Amino acid sequence: MTALKAKPADDRDVDLETARYLFETIAARTPDTQGVSRPAFSAVETDTLRFLEDFARDNGLEVWYDAGANANFALPGDRDAERFVVIGSHVDSVPYGGNFDGLAGVVAGLVCLLRAQRRGERFARPVHVLAMRGEESAWFGPCYIGSKALTGTLDAAELKALHKGDGRTLDNHMGDAGIAMEPVRGRQPLIDLSAIEAYLELHIEQGPLLIGKEIPAAVVSGIRGNFRHRRVRCIGEAGHSGAVPKAYRRDAVLAMADLLVRLDESWSTILNMGDDLVLTSGMVGTDPERHAMSKIPEEVSFSLDIRSQSPRTLDDMRRLLQAEMQQVEKDRKVRFELDEEMRVEPAMCDPELVEGLKAAMARVGQEPFVMPSGGGHDAAVFSAAGVPSAMVFVRNSNGSHNPQEAMELADFIAATDIVHEFLTRHE
Amino acid sequence: MTALKAKPADDRDVDLETARYLFETIAARTPDTQGVSRPAFSAVETDTLRFLEDFARDNGLEVWYDAGANANFALPGDRDAERFVVIGSHVDSVPYGGNFDGLAGVVAGLVCLLRAQRRGERFARPVHVLAMRGEESAWFGPCYIGSKALTGTLDAAELKALHKGDGRTLDNHMGDAGIAMEPVRGRQPLIDLSAIEAYLELHIEQGPLLIGKEIPAAVVSGIRGNFRHRRVRCIGEAGHSGAVPKAYRRDAVLAMADLLVRLDESWSTILNMGDDLVLTSGMVGTDPERHAMSKIPEEVSFSLDIRSQSPRTLDDMRRLLQAEMQQVEKDRKVRFELDEEMRVEPAMCDPELVEGLKAAMARVGQEPFVMPSGGGHDAAVFSAAGVPSAMVFVRNSNGSHNPQEAMELADFIAATDIVHEFLTRHE
Repeated sequence: MTALKAKPADDRDVDLETARYLFETIAARTPDTQGVSRPAFSAVETDTLRFLEDFARDNGLEVWYDAGANANFALPGDRDAERFVVIGSHVDSVPYGGNFDGLAGVVAGLVCLLRAQRRGERFARPVHVLAMRGEESAWFGPCYIGSKALTGTLDAAELKALHKGDGRTLDNHMGDAGIAMEPVRGRQPLIDLSAIEAYLELHIEQGPLLIGKEIPAAVVSGIRGNFRHRRVRCIGEAGHSGAVPKAYRRDAVLAMADLLVRLDESWSTILNMGDDLVLTSGMVGTDPERHAMSKIPEEVSFSLDIRSQSPRTLDDMRRLLQAEMQQVEKDRKVRFELDEEMRVEPAMCDPELVEGLKAAMARVGQEPFVMPSGGGHDAAVFSAAGVPSAMVFVRNSNGSHNPQEAMELADFIAATDIVHEFLTRHE
Repeated sequence: MTALKAKPADDRDVDLETARYLFETIAARTPDTQGVSRPAFSAVETDTLRFLEDFARDNGLEVWYDAGANANFALPGDRDAERFVVIGSHVDSVPYGGNFDGLAGVVAGLVCLLRAQRRGERFARPVHVLAMRGEESAWFGPCYIGSKALTGTLDAAELKALHKGDGRTLDNHMGDAGIAMEPVRGRQPLIDLSAIEAYLELHIEQGPLLIGKEIPAAVVSGIRGNFRHRRVRCIGEAGHSGAVPKAYRRDAVLAMADLLVRLDESWSTILNMGDDLVLTSGMVGTDPERHAMSKIPEEVSFSLDIRSQSPRTLDDMRRLLQAEMQQVEKDRKVRFELDEEMRVEPAMCDPELVEGLKAAMARVGQEPFVMPSGGGHDAAVFSAAGVPSAMVFVRNSNGSHNPQEAMELADFIAATDIVHEFLTRHE
């Protein structure tokens, strides 16, 4: 049984009940010891797509799988449209994950299709809902695997990445999921990207901005790019904590603290100038094998994760980091060593789509609000592949990637309203 | 064979040869995989004392063991003096240790006795050289064990401390070394402290000050006290590194960096005011089980080791730490938690002894120079027990507690000259 048990009278209640049913049923089918777990390219992921397939067929939608083994849904007759809008997202999750990261975007697409069907409306353009596999990096290391495979941008090194659990390659796991791997290895797009007029993705916000602003949803202006270092080493000199005067010290921890405070101050300056930036040193540590309470720290390692919507701000920060490290090296007689930079370019959402979504937001009675996305999403992959892309965020407490994700269904419907209004009136 | 092989013509060369023979022979008898290892209250420590006993007897000195199983040496006839000066130090070392930390003070005492004997001089007061056991905390946790036992200040908790290797108690190990433990457990002094006119200790400098000043030795003004926290926790809130704007963050690592930079700035101010202070955060770390490059750090732990010769400066720093933590808590919406404070009061060297040693330094042709000791030493235990105490430092590269300790024998003799001159002319 996958059709809805009861049909509430109010049209809005039908959507709420559909969403609740899909979220609750899928969560119950994919439990982890805490939260949910839907591993990328696993049988659990396949089962989730099969469940959605049954649900959609039972409710009169057309369903098919693409060459990436992702499930696609449309109103009857729209499958073979020459051009169409894609409402996409992913169904996989991290381990000990929350239920809404990814899945909310798929459910929103289905709610839009079912609402249109129920009301007897046609969309302004045909709509395909795309439920993708394998977006999370938690299982193999690479992220956006499903959308990269579709767009022909998954590279050989990524295909060789090993599963964290069984140690088999991503290539093996994708093959097991039923994907013909030759075109993927040959970096051929698995779908006709030129047929996609726009790619839209609804996602829970992974930060607290909408909670703070007390609004249920927002249009996303772009996806922050980043440059990151997993391990910056600051190298000083060991010494007796009691016996070495300040002037003779080369204290690696105080040098790291000095650098981080300098970067933090520059961050404030850059925000005051109206630019976009976030900066995080999430992992720091002296070596437990060598450190001691009464020993001047000879070395400390720390990570840096610097993100902005603006490539220029990222370049500025790259130069600033070098300049501040040099100053601290001079002041404190230490040495910094950066490991290889990891880099993701910012992805701007398509300006016309952003304007269209803002207008839709106003039409459904919400004050238009635009904000950047801090995390990366499949939308960035479609955008990089030349598909005009945009996103809508839903208010959500406690971040994502954890069982405490807390999206209110009323907020989800408010965000889905924006997408539905856009699809219906899109010129 | 423990007598010297050759007797160089020059009097100074005899001392150099004695010192070289003792240092080299003892290092060769107590090797570790790197450097030396002479564990506290071990058979290796006992063997070292026995070797010194044989050497001293062969060279005409009187030798006896006290109730703490420490070796004592004197010129014939001085053993039963009513009052005497003690030249003391320890023979144990840390694992992978340097050869000079501790042992240099014992060798200096023996060189003084042999020089007086060779020259047919009498000291101004009878001199006992005290070669103690168990000063290093590396083996059981507690430090100054030998001198605390002698002065009746080793407490019950320390006696229950477990050996890092075999897990047996300090009490057991001391018993095995031949010490009658009842008086130690009863906290009775094992020697008549009132008979000790002064306690002098020669030690390698554990910092680089004398290297920097280019002088071979110094008189110690006092031993820095300290207050320490093994684990200060800074507690913030986790979040997505890309998705949470600055104003919403409670970043534990940036808060720690802020606190450390504030303390570092106050340190400079305090030094500029002419006060004595050193400050170290030797161990820092986020939790490897919970941290991630793309996660705002919810917690970080760090140690604090704050030392000064002045009890007032330590009190000031204790208040300053509280005030700065409160400010950072307010500014950055984090919370600091201090574990229990460990505390050692500063020990001032006896002013008359310091003046006497400075005068002796001038008489042997060295510019008098006085400096604090950053590390703790047995001298602090004798001082706390009411025995007038003082120390002389020898220039040394690369700190102590490591195989790279590098004391030049010429510097050792220059420092021993100060002690010998003081003992000979002490009014």
